[in-house]
Amino acid sequence: MSENKNIRLLIDCFGGDNSPSANVEGALCAIERFNDLHLILTGDEELIKKELENKKADMSRIEIVHAPDIVTCNDKPTDAIRLKKDSSMMRAVRLLREDDSISGMVSTGSTGALVAAATLRIGRLRGVIRPAFCPILPTMNGGIVGICDSGANVDVTADYLQQFAIMGSLYLETVYGVSSPHVALLNIGTEETKGDNLRKEAFSVLRDTPGINFVGNMESRDLLTGKFDLVVCDGFSGNVLIKSTEGACLEMLKKLKKDISSSIINKFGALFMYRMFMREKEFMNYQNYGGSVLLGTSKVVVKGHGSSNADAVAKCIEQAYLMGTGALTDKIEAALDVSSDEE
Amino acid sequence: MSENKNIRLLIDCFGGDNSPSANVEGALCAIERFNDLHLILTGDEELIKKELENKKADMSRIEIVHAPDIVTCNDKPTDAIRLKKDSSMMRAVRLLREDDSISGMVSTGSTGALVAAATLRIGRLRGVIRPAFCPILPTMNGGIVGICDSGANVDVTADYLQQFAIMGSLYLETVYGVSSPHVALLNIGTEETKGDNLRKEAFSVLRDTPGINFVGNMESRDLLTGKFDLVVCDGFSGNVLIKSTEGACLEMLKKLKKDISSSIINKFGALFMYRMFMREKEFMNYQNYGGSVLLGTSKVVVKGHGSSNADAVAKCIEQAYLMGTGALTDKIEAALDVSSDEE
Repeated sequence: MSENKNIRLLIDCFGGDNSPSANVEGALCAIERFNDLHLILTGDEELIKKELENKKADMSRIEIVHAPDIVTCNDKPTDAIRLKKDSSMMRAVRLLREDDSISGMVSTGSTGALVAAATLRIGRLRGVIRPAFCPILPTMNGGIVGICDSGANVDVTADYLQQFAIMGSLYLETVYGVSSPHVALLNIGTEETKGDNLRKEAFSVLRDTPGINFVGNMESRDLLTGKFDLVVCDGFSGNVLIKSTEGACLEMLKKLKKDISSSIINKFGALFMYRMFMREKEFMNYQNYGGSVLLGTSKVVVKGHGSSNADAVAKCIEQAYLMGTGALTDKIEAALDVSSDEE
Repeated sequence: MSENKNIRLLIDCFGGDNSPSANVEGALCAIERFNDLHLILTGDEELIKKELENKKADMSRIEIVHAPDIVTCNDKPTDAIRLKKDSSMMRAVRLLREDDSISGMVSTGSTGALVAAATLRIGRLRGVIRPAFCPILPTMNGGIVGICDSGANVDVTADYLQQFAIMGSLYLETVYGVSSPHVALLNIGTEETKGDNLRKEAFSVLRDTPGINFVGNMESRDLLTGKFDLVVCDGFSGNVLIKSTEGACLEMLKKLKKDISSSIINKFGALFMYRMFMREKEFMNYQNYGGSVLLGTSKVVVKGHGSSNADAVAKCIEQAYLMGTGALTDKIEAALDVSSDEE
């Protein structure tokens, strides 16, 4: 599988709910999985070393960069950049900017600080108006669906949405092997005439964009059906979309669990279905689908969920690794170059 | 229960997927339930009479107004108003406007045409900037949550959102007996500083609005937790919110059903849980929670889902009846009068 591309990635080991243990363990998992992967762990060196103790892994491919400070969710993003230069996150950002041999970073810390630092310090790829998040959800037919943007840009224009469609399509092709992804525009109805002026303009822009497979408007109720591979939207409604979908599935499972425990007959029946219920739970566990990648920055940035466990961190590293080996940033830059030439 | 208030309502009997039978049967159900309710059914008289044949009900409280034409979802709303004057929907709208003894109408037809006709022909209550939809969903603790607006206004201002909060609170108090409803602003984070300028402005406006119980920002993942009674939002994100929540719950149930049928052991276990699964299905069946009421029009307008069955139509009529007996329109007008005085 590995073609020895020697991918080097930074792992911000602090700032998540389960940091640093989940981050370090996730890093070790990823090192095992890809034998041309090199990781640089940032954070308090002593604490990281403690986590590495007695673990079996190829330590020759792991480096530690000491950065004792931690960015928290209470830090204002601009303050975090200015005042917490010695934090695990900002040190990783600086190394990513300065070292050409490093292709990306993974963090489970503050989203706001990461977006601000990525935009201001790492910068955008040539031609990109605004970087956007593209998290992944599972669909009911066993596939996946990407949502771009899910919160980095609350205000957008049709041009932004066009770029989200191009970048998201390349991401799904490169990392997940989805060929010619079905791209839909999130709207309040499926007809071309639906929605506000932004959606109407975006519809015609997307329809006329070469190189993407635009299939029309999508209503949010169809997100999980598997009919669409990529949903393009402003960051506000994308955030509402992904969190309400996750929330509804979680609340349903909780209710089911409660209702099962409320009766002996239900409990007895559930015994036979234990494995099925475990599978449903795993199916809806967002930890299995990796992090939100930030598309459009000049280097790879993956934001893991704050509550990520080791598996989730390993999954995020895998995403960053595949973006690196697949040269996603080069592809995005080339595609946006072409699309701006054609305009 | 009934205080003999003699509520008169119009029922548009056409335009839904199960029209006219579901509409007529729903009307008969409601007539049975409330003995001071009078209904005027609009639509093709012969077809309605056929539906009424051999049914047991107090026919003295049912009238038919012949209107042979039907507004379909393919009709442009303004065309429907202009060209389909003889349709079941537009005839109902005209009667509602002209007859002071009628307090409201229920329709399962085209949403766009109904909103346009309600706004242009029936008009707004004094002080109302824009009418808004307020559908209801069940919460996981056995309560309900209202979402205002869910699609009538894709572009809003902080002033609109303030009115949605006031109108929605009065609706929940009047029809569902929720005292001092917890009102939340839909946002992409819970902190006061989150979201775009609109959300920031709306946050401070809502916080300073007397007579409502504003509890802060809400993330969409918490919609069904039962912590909030009313969610205030623009019609675009409200539409995304409600449809993604409904969609996720439905897709989950479908997946569960498929997974159960895929194994004999699962099927055996499910036998013991049959009643529970039926209850879950009923719990998430939006037909049980009535229609989307349009708040802010000078008379009561309830929009039932296009696929409404007889029970759902009866539920919509019950909502319109309770809005009538509770004098909701008067309460809204009085509240907006006060709130504009105080500004």
